[in-house]
Amino acid sequence: MARPATINWVGETEGRLELLDQRLLPATIKILSLRTVAQVEEAIRSLAVRGAPAIGVAAAYGMVVAAQELAANIQPGPALESLREKGLFLKSSRPTAVNLAWAVDRVLAAVEQEHPQTAASIVGIALTEARAIHSEDVAMCRAIGQHGAALIHPSYGVLTHCNAGYLATTGDGTALAILYEAHRRGIAFHVYADETRPVLQGARLTAWELMQENIPVTLITDSMAALVMAQKKVDLVLVGADRIAANGDTANKIGTYSVATLAAAHGIPFYVVAPSSTFDLSLPDGSAIPIEERRAEEITHGFGCQTAPTGVHVYNPAFDVTPAELIRGIVTERGIISPIHAANIRATVAKS
Amino acid sequence: MARPATINWVGETEGRLELLDQRLLPATIKILSLRTVAQVEEAIRSLAVRGAPAIGVAAAYGMVVAAQELAANIQPGPALESLREKGLFLKSSRPTAVNLAWAVDRVLAAVEQEHPQTAASIVGIALTEARAIHSEDVAMCRAIGQHGAALIHPSYGVLTHCNAGYLATTGDGTALAILYEAHRRGIAFHVYADETRPVLQGARLTAWELMQENIPVTLITDSMAALVMAQKKVDLVLVGADRIAANGDTANKIGTYSVATLAAAHGIPFYVVAPSSTFDLSLPDGSAIPIEERRAEEITHGFGCQTAPTGVHVYNPAFDVTPAELIRGIVTERGIISPIHAANIRATVAKS
Repeated sequence: MARPATINWVGETEGRLELLDQRLLPATIKILSLRTVAQVEEAIRSLAVRGAPAIGVAAAYGMVVAAQELAANIQPGPALESLREKGLFLKSSRPTAVNLAWAVDRVLAAVEQEHPQTAASIVGIALTEARAIHSEDVAMCRAIGQHGAALIHPSYGVLTHCNAGYLATTGDGTALAILYEAHRRGIAFHVYADETRPVLQGARLTAWELMQENIPVTLITDSMAALVMAQKKVDLVLVGADRIAANGDTANKIGTYSVATLAAAHGIPFYVVAPSSTFDLSLPDGSAIPIEERRAEEITHGFGCQTAPTGVHVYNPAFDVTPAELIRGIVTERGIISPIHAANIRATVAKS
Repeated sequence: MARPATINWVGETEGRLELLDQRLLPATIKILSLRTVAQVEEAIRSLAVRGAPAIGVAAAYGMVVAAQELAANIQPGPALESLREKGLFLKSSRPTAVNLAWAVDRVLAAVEQEHPQTAASIVGIALTEARAIHSEDVAMCRAIGQHGAALIHPSYGVLTHCNAGYLATTGDGTALAILYEAHRRGIAFHVYADETRPVLQGARLTAWELMQENIPVTLITDSMAALVMAQKKVDLVLVGADRIAANGDTANKIGTYSVATLAAAHGIPFYVVAPSSTFDLSLPDGSAIPIEERRAEEITHGFGCQTAPTGVHVYNPAFDVTPAELIRGIVTERGIISPIHAANIRATVAKS
C-alpha cells in the first residue's frame, strides 16, 4: 500500500524521528522532523501521533532522541539516570495508553542490561531496541489481520469508532488490519465510521484511510450509530484499545462504551482489537485505568470557530472503559481471546 | 426572562416577521426581518428557526406573509388557491416536524371558514389565527412546565439532547420548560447537554439558554452520554419531539434513539416533552414518519473547515425514531401520558 509512513526513523544513531502530522489530516499531508525529547513529548501530547501502538513506537524512538541529547552532553553513569528521567517525561505526555510506558520501559531495560560504557553507545542500544519494537509492531498488525479476517463475512456491515488503522500503528492497524486483510482476501463489506467527537479521528483518519484503499465507507456522526444498528446495517463492531485490564475491561476512545452498550442492545457482536502490549495485568479491572481529561477547547472550539458559549462548563474525558461483559472477543496478534475472562487473558498474554 | 424573542410579528396586517437567527448563536445575536414566503421557507429550511413548535409558529406567520404577497397582486377566488400553494411550499421546507403542516393547515382552514371577499381581508384572518397559534404556544410551554416540574427532584442530574428550550418555541420551551419551572420553584439540579452533532444545537443553543438562566449545565459530546449515565450522574432524560405516531413512537433529533437506548440500558427514565400538536394520529407507528436527510456538508464541513475527506460518502438523517417502549412518559400541555399506549394517547390528544 502506497501511503505516508505514520512513523519513520531516518538515518542511524545520528538520525532523526519523522512523524506524519495527524492533526492536519485529511486536508494536509505534512511530515514532522523531531530532534528533541521536548518535541517528541509535544507531538504525542498534542495528537500529532496518536493510537496506542503508534504512541508506543514513537516513544521508543523518543528514547533514542533522549539518548542523543545525553550523548551530546554527559557521561554514562548520570546518563542512565537522566535517560530514566526523560522516559518519565515522555510517559507523562498521555496517561491512558499503556503502550507508551511499556515501550519506554522496554528501551530502558535494554540499555540497562547492556551496561554501556559511553553515552554514545546508549544511543545505539536504544535504536536497536526501538527498531525491534517498530518491526514487531508491523508484524503484530499483520498477525492481527490474519487472526481476525475470518470475522468478516461477505456483505457484512462493520462499524468502527475512532481510528484503529494504519495511522494508529506502524503497520496495517489493529481493528482496520482485519478489514484490510479481509479486503485482500476478496471479501466485500461496508464500513460505518463514527466521526468520533471531539477530535474527529473517525472522520479525518479512518474514512480517509479506507478511501485510500478503496474500501466502501460511510461516515456518520457518533449519534447515528444506534440508528444504523436498528436499521440492521451493522453485523459487527470492531474497535481498538488503549489499555486492557486483567479481567478484560477495556479503555478506548471516548464513545466506545456507548457503542458497546448499543451493540449489546441490538445483539451485534462487539470485538476489541489490540496487541498483547495493550494489556496491563497489574490492574485487576477497568476502574483502576487512569482516564485522561483534555481541555475544553477541543469541544468548544473544535475546528476553526466557536461552537459553544464562552465560559461553558465542559466535561472532556478522552477515554471510557467498556466492561468485559460487553466484549465478545479480543483479537490479538496471538489469536482471539473469547470468551473474555482473566484466565483466558493470562494464557494469551503470558505466551512468548 | 430577558432574552431575544425566538419569533416576533412586528406591526399589524402591514407588518413583518422577525426571527432570531439561530444559525449564528451563540457567537452572534442577529434578528432576521422576513417579507416574502421565499425568505420564510429558506429560514426554516436552513435552520435559522428550528424546533417543532417554533417552526409551527413561524409557518403560521409565513402564511400571513403569503397572504400579504397575494393581497399585493390578485383577487380572493384564485387568492385562496394561491394561498394553498404557498402553504404547500412552506410545508416542503422540512418534512419531519408535523407542527409545520399543522400550523399551515390551521391558518388555511381559518381563512376558508371566513369566506373572505378581498385578498386584504385574508391577511387579517391569517394574522388573527397566527397570533392565536403563537399565544397558544406560549401557554402550552407554561402548562408543560407546570405538569413536568414534579419530575425534577433536588440534586437530580438531567440529560437532554438537542434543543427543546425557549429557542425551539415562542415560550419557555418544552423539555427545558420543565427545567425552568423547577428552577423557579427553587429545586437545585444539574443539566448534561449533549452537543448534538451535526448542527450542535445542544452546544450552541441549550447550553447558552441554560447559562442565561443561571442553571448549572455541563456540555458533553454525544458520545459521552453513556459514560455519564454509567457514572450515575444522570437521573432523568428529557427530550423534545418533532412528530409522535399514534402508538407513541417518537421522531426527534438524530441521536435521541441512541440516548433512549442507553437510558434503558442504565435504568434511567426517559421522557418525551411535546405539545399535543406534535402527535400525528394518522400514523399508526413510527415507521411511517418521514425522516429528512440533510446535506453531507453539515458533517464534513461543520466547523468552519473541512473535517472529512473530499468525496467521502456520508449518511445524514436529521431525525431518528424512538420506539414507544423506551419512553417512560410523554409530557404534554394537557398532562403526562404514561404508560405510553394508543388509548392513553388518544384520550389526551382528543381532549379539548
